[in-house]
Formats: sequence, C-alpha cells, structure tokens
Amino acid sequence: MTSTLPTLLFSTIEVTTQSFYRTSLSYAIVNIKPIVPGHVLVVPTRPVPRIADLNDSELISLMRSVRRVGTVVQRVYGADALTIACQDGPAAGQSVPHVHFHILPRKAQGDRFSEDKDAIYPELETTEAILMSDMQEGAEHRHQPFKVDADEDRKPRSIEEMVSEANWLKGFFTEDDLREQVD
Amino acid sequence: MTSTLPTLLFSTIEVTTQSFYRTSLSYAIVNIKPIVPGHVLVVPTRPVPRIADLNDSELISLMRSVRRVGTVVQRVYGADALTIACQDGPAAGQSVPHVHFHILPRKAQGDRFSEDKDAIYPELETTEAILMSDMQEGAEHRHQPFKVDADEDRKPRSIEEMVSEANWLKGFFTEDDLREQVD
Repeated sequence: MTSTLPTLLFSTIEVTTQSFYRTSLSYAIVNIKPIVPGHVLVVPTRPVPRIADLNDSELISLMRSVRRVGTVVQRVYGADALTIACQDGPAAGQSVPHVHFHILPRKAQGDRFSEDKDAIYPELETTEAILMSDMQEGAEHRHQPFKVDADEDRKPRSIEEMVSEANWLKGFFTEDDLREQVD
Repeated sequence: MTSTLPTLLFSTIEVTTQSFYRTSLSYAIVNIKPIVPGHVLVVPTRPVPRIADLNDSELISLMRSVRRVGTVVQRVYGADALTIACQDGPAAGQSVPHVHFHILPRKAQGDRFSEDKDAIYPELETTEAILMSDMQEGAEHRHQPFKVDADEDRKPRSIEEMVSEANWLKGFFTEDDLREQVD
C-alpha cells in the first residue's frame, strides 16, 4: 500500500520510509538523532524554507498535523507536555532549508531534562546544526549500528531503527487521521 | 475605537493595552521582558492551556496570526529569521496556563545571540518561568522605570513602554489583517 504513495522529500533527502503520518500537504517523520524519546519532525510536503512561504492550506494542514502528532507522541511515549519549536530561517539556527516543527515529548519527572528543563534547547540547536549532514550521511551508509546516547557524541540511528519506530507509530493513527482535512 | 473591542485576557491578566494585533479568535501582545527586540507573544483569545485544547478554527486563526505577525516583526525590527516556540504544558516549561507562541526576531549578524545562537533558549526558559509573576506585579505597579538589559536582572518594562511599542506596531497592520479569516 505504501508503495503507491508519493515519495516524501525533506529538502533534497528522501524520507519516505521514516515517515509515520501523512496527509496530502504535510507529514511527520522520526528523527535520525532524537534528543528525547519520541522527538519527531512535522513537515509541509512542499519543500519551502520559511513559514511565510506556506499557502493557507499548507499552513492549516501543517498545524493540524502538529496538534494531532503531538497528542499521539505525548501519550505513547508516556510524557506530560510538549516542546514545540521551529527555527524559521538560517539566522534562527535552521540547517535544513525546508520548514519543520520539532515536537519533543517532555516528562515532569524521570527524563534527563526534568531537573533542568532549559537544557533541552542547546541540544536542540546542536542537533539541528548537524541534521542535514547526518541525514545525507545516513542516506549513504544505511547500516550503522543503533546508538542513542545522552552525550553529543551519539551516532545517527540506522535506517532500520528509524523504520521500525515509524512502523510502530503508524499503528497509533487511524485512516481518518491520514485523510486530508483542508477546507 | 479600541474601547469598543472586548477586553483581552492572558490567563487571568488583562493585556488589552499591550496588544497590537487581534482577530476574533487570536491576538498578539508585546512582551513585558523581551529577550530580543520584537520578542512578542501570539495567543488564542480563549484561555485554554494546551494546543490540543484548541478547536480547529482557533488553531487556524492562531497560526495565521503567527505567520502574519512573524512576517511583520521580522521586517520592522530588521531581522533575518524567527525563532518560534511553544512550551505546551508545565513539564515543557510553560508558566502561564494559556497557550502562547513566542516569536523572536533573529539577526544573522549584530544581535547579542548571533555568535551563539542557542544562548537564546535558556533565556527564553528563564523569562517564561517568571512571566506570570512579572505580569501580575506589572499590573499592580505600572510605573516602574523602563529598563531592558542583557542580564537576567533586567526589570519588567513599564506599561507605558509596552503601550508605546504596541501602538507603534499597530501601524504596520491593515484593517484586512484584523478581519477574522476563519473558514
């Protein structure tokens, strides 16, 4: 069934297999280097760099997807809240020139940022800075061992690991979720 | 004219005079303690704590306002990009229990975060943590001297300063901007 769906591009990088949610105008993918469990990206299907470049239907679809995907990942990763952030332009730290919202499930207690909540942001910036190179490298070397550590030396995940998580997440969405709801 | 418009509440705090943009379902206000020039908040008019609590019309209005207000503040503050962030729930650092997007104009060169872009986030968290108390205190003591420093000891701005900035910003929006555009 998935083979009949169009290929998804994140900027110039194909991300079809790591997607777990899509409508005709937006999609969500698991992250090559998640900062916390369930750190995912929500993306407009058309590769434009800035939020101001989105037409109305695209903006609406994108934010409905942020709301829906956020609700699901908060629940299935056992979190209590969400950090939602968009680096809208290179001067804001954007590295991939394609609009994307980071969604990060947050826990009141028991995650590694619960004591120092703001520590998540520098790491988000660091991750963003290397997102493009990581994903390009990942596309070339798809068989790296899986490793997600708390330190900045953690390696990008393998494509198999990402596909596995994406397939697991797909199970939490219904056919209704995936129908485009643009007015 | 403004006296005929309904009062705006940010959680329990009246923010009508510091607003510079409003539709029937969302509004934007200047910040009592901006991290960078043009740091503003975009808010759904109905005071709900989480993005998941917004109905479809409210979500659409909110994000159209984020796009429109972001475009204007980037231009009029001479910036190159925008940091857009929502702390969606207390475990993500939210202090005021009313959905709000921070919009922060960012400069490639020449602002105090251009060398170390990620330094803006800890300060955003610090500011958020004291937003509620600052605004409540500000509502009680409206005649503090204006002071916005780079350090964390900077004082909340006076209401006069905020009203002045809000009135200046209003001039960059047209009547069309302020008409609700919900489908």
